[in-house]
Amino acid sequence: MQTIAVEPGGEPTILERPVPEPAAGEALVRTLRVGVDGTDHEVIAGSHGGVPDGDDHLVLGHEAVGVVEDANGTGLESGQVVVPTVRRPPNGTNRYFETGYPDMAPEGEYVERGIAGGHGFMAEYFTSPAEFLVPIPADLAHLGFLVEPISISEKAVEHAFASRSAFDWQPESAMILGNGSLGLLTVAMCVETLGFDRVYCLGRRDRPDPTIDIIEALGATYVDSRKTPVSEVADAYEGMDFIYEATGYAPHAFETIEALAPNGVGALLGVPSSWTFEIDGGALHEEFVLHNKALIGSVNSHRGHFESAIDTLSQLPEWFTDDLVTGVYGLEDFEAAFDDDDTTIKTAVEFDRI
Amino acid sequence: MQTIAVEPGGEPTILERPVPEPAAGEALVRTLRVGVDGTDHEVIAGSHGGVPDGDDHLVLGHEAVGVVEDANGTGLESGQVVVPTVRRPPNGTNRYFETGYPDMAPEGEYVERGIAGGHGFMAEYFTSPAEFLVPIPADLAHLGFLVEPISISEKAVEHAFASRSAFDWQPESAMILGNGSLGLLTVAMCVETLGFDRVYCLGRRDRPDPTIDIIEALGATYVDSRKTPVSEVADAYEGMDFIYEATGYAPHAFETIEALAPNGVGALLGVPSSWTFEIDGGALHEEFVLHNKALIGSVNSHRGHFESAIDTLSQLPEWFTDDLVTGVYGLEDFEAAFDDDDTTIKTAVEFDRI
Repeated sequence: MQTIAVEPGGEPTILERPVPEPAAGEALVRTLRVGVDGTDHEVIAGSHGGVPDGDDHLVLGHEAVGVVEDANGTGLESGQVVVPTVRRPPNGTNRYFETGYPDMAPEGEYVERGIAGGHGFMAEYFTSPAEFLVPIPADLAHLGFLVEPISISEKAVEHAFASRSAFDWQPESAMILGNGSLGLLTVAMCVETLGFDRVYCLGRRDRPDPTIDIIEALGATYVDSRKTPVSEVADAYEGMDFIYEATGYAPHAFETIEALAPNGVGALLGVPSSWTFEIDGGALHEEFVLHNKALIGSVNSHRGHFESAIDTLSQLPEWFTDDLVTGVYGLEDFEAAFDDDDTTIKTAVEFDRI
Repeated sequence: MQTIAVEPGGEPTILERPVPEPAAGEALVRTLRVGVDGTDHEVIAGSHGGVPDGDDHLVLGHEAVGVVEDANGTGLESGQVVVPTVRRPPNGTNRYFETGYPDMAPEGEYVERGIAGGHGFMAEYFTSPAEFLVPIPADLAHLGFLVEPISISEKAVEHAFASRSAFDWQPESAMILGNGSLGLLTVAMCVETLGFDRVYCLGRRDRPDPTIDIIEALGATYVDSRKTPVSEVADAYEGMDFIYEATGYAPHAFETIEALAPNGVGALLGVPSSWTFEIDGGALHEEFVLHNKALIGSVNSHRGHFESAIDTLSQLPEWFTDDLVTGVYGLEDFEAAFDDDDTTIKTAVEFDRI
């Protein structure tokens, strides 16, 4: 079968591999579509993740949707549309997987398929233990590759809101830092399913721009960070009850403290590298304490978040997903799915149709 | 009656004031003891809080215990030992007070008795609405001034643990930054009531030192920050599941991120002033995200935290409170209660006996 793989330092390329045989407890899945996101670009660039032990290449792809080809006695049904979760236990299992929280496993206690230490889903077929395959209604199959990124936000929101559960929190305003595909999906969640009254999205793009069009069509406010830095957002607009950082720009993690309203919470999701800079740590510390603010870091997601994400996906307007997904490419022109310019928002590779 | 008050720029002094008359819904309380803490020293120095509008002085004291002298039809009973909460609504009431969360009120929505905008409890008598008076068993009356500081930690712990409630958190290790009286009370809580297996307390004192003796008698480990900075704690000891910062030293707020174990949470309680310094913000941001860490800021506490604190206080060993309280002084030598040297841990002024 054909896969899309990358060798360290190389570009994504078609690689022939045998169709995998499902082991006991595993199903064989025929892949439909696999999304591309910023993590894939980091993996290709070599700044994040790595090949499986003993291998010289990594099959890409962690945002997949497929159809059960061989249920193999797992309890799944042949023809069922499924979305795979990403993390797998590296050696047998461990308490994070046993308790249902692989997303909370520390380094060494997981591999991530398509990212770090495990082959991904950009292949005509893949196998997976049935417990890591989440059923999705067939009418959402064409958008199933959005379930994994939405699940990332479901987890971040759950953790952020949990941090505010010890009092009567009544959030009204939300700001998403970053207008990439994950940022836009989260803007849509904040507007459509989380019930925020006022939603803002920060980017650094000039009009006309397709992401600004989506932000405004959702009823959210576009904030140009070149005119209004995060540190000035509270004065220029309002203090935010919830901030979702999806830029990976390290100063944003700390400026978030200033941009939050009293009792607000920031969810950090970006993964920058080492970078030393100055902050007014005294003022930030004081602000954090005297206004009961919170920050949570969030990575990955568990099966429950995938299930919530499927529910969220079913509530997103069709025009939104139409505008968000700017390209779905077959294997013959899969390279186009890895383009990353200002007209590209979200892309996927299509391996087969339902 | 005699009160202990301070004018801006001055020292605490005895000031005669009339015995207050309880309004409808208020009780008159005869004061027993009032504790002194770091906030009092900041108020006296003028770096925190301020006098009530239209007044030229502030009656000190926010850690009080007293006896109901005149229940005034409030439902309290004459002779009942009570501890007052600290925050009051500035104009009538507001939603933070109505919903029971005055501790979450932003600036402008509260005054703090003895700290900012409201006279404190260092007086032979004070009045208070009954809803802000928390009954305490008479056999704890002599230690009732410890309820308010313990309540501060009850709130911080509640918020910190809430932030970890979206998964199966199994904390084992805790570190308290700061070996002042609040730090030591929190070390005792971590050991005696919160069930941590391993508890550490960071300070910068040479042996022999009475706080180090208490830390070790509790079975906790003293960490000298001059030898092991917070940023090196994870390597030198272990990553901490819970960190409680009570130093007000701003770099600690950010070094806490490094010292936490994966999935750990830091509660920040110190109130530093503006101070610019360098951090490796990229590495801290990455660490925060990839290991699902959390930080919460916490200030003040509500009635429920006072009730939890009374329960905690009843469980603390007698030797501990004996060693913690290094002096209780009458009005004739109240100045000694404001001494702040290395042999002083926790002091109180005694206004009357039960």
